[in-house]
Amino acid sequence: MNATYQLNPKLDLSFERIVEVPKELIWRAWTQPQNLMPWFCPLPWRTIACEIDLRPGGLFHTVMQSPEGQNFPNEGCYLEVIENEKLVWTNALLPGFRPAPASANCGNSSVSFFFTATIQLETHGTGTKYSATVQHGDEAACKQHAAMGFNEGWGIALDQLVAHTQKM
Amino acid sequence: MNATYQLNPKLDLSFERIVEVPKELIWRAWTQPQNLMPWFCPLPWRTIACEIDLRPGGLFHTVMQSPEGQNFPNEGCYLEVIENEKLVWTNALLPGFRPAPASANCGNSSVSFFFTATIQLETHGTGTKYSATVQHGDEAACKQHAAMGFNEGWGIALDQLVAHTQKM
Repeated sequence: MNATYQLNPKLDLSFERIVEVPKELIWRAWTQPQNLMPWFCPLPWRTIACEIDLRPGGLFHTVMQSPEGQNFPNEGCYLEVIENEKLVWTNALLPGFRPAPASANCGNSSVSFFFTATIQLETHGTGTKYSATVQHGDEAACKQHAAMGFNEGWGIALDQLVAHTQKM
Repeated sequence: MNATYQLNPKLDLSFERIVEVPKELIWRAWTQPQNLMPWFCPLPWRTIACEIDLRPGGLFHTVMQSPEGQNFPNEGCYLEVIENEKLVWTNALLPGFRPAPASANCGNSSVSFFFTATIQLETHGTGTKYSATVQHGDEAACKQHAAMGFNEGWGIALDQLVAHTQKM
């Protein structure tokens, strides 16, 4: 994280794991739509659309689909892009850094809270130390995200990511 | 603005003027606390505190004081910093890109809406084309900001900035 960042256990969720995949493949799985869609949602949910404009201020858009066929779009904005090392985005801003609109849901997302997510990749032996951190603005948002199954969800998605990289 | 940005007259406020000041001095007036505090609020309001961590994710903090002595703190986060050319910040995020908390006011600001502000500086003859744009998330926020006297306020502040640069 950058120098001003301090992990706050009341506001942040984090996830860390060593995986036997080179960080360059994980980066591509996070930043190329065709390599993100196969793993991004824990099955039987699916990611049926993805658009990525990989630069600060650029669009990160996905549409998740429930097993019942309901669509959940999510629109956010990249904040920091360091190839093969660090990716930061938020749903509190839309592309071009525009604030997300006030609405029942938060902005153009299918979740009712704002978050900023950071993925960090660090070479570890022949694999990668994979760290994910999600920052929230208040404890209620953090608790809600935890209750949605953050740790389990990100863990299953990472398993799916690793499996996908075998086919890349 | 960046490539995805499109001015939206229902959501954005903008201000442009040619001033007879080199852009390097205007940049310093926007990015050095001792050179920002003297001009940042239209008098008789004053800026009594300012903290700047000039990098994406860094803090932009000011405290404005009314003539009656009431303090109005504002905390935001820089998004883009291109020396002498472009400065972008928002109050929708706090330092380290953390989403601002949900509250009666917006985040840690003394205004009740989120915005992203962009200052752009371009050499124009012996002076500078000074452009300010403020993006909002919805029309209500934009109208509220306009009704607060955006154009007059930014115009007076720029007059004060130009006057201050004579003393720098």
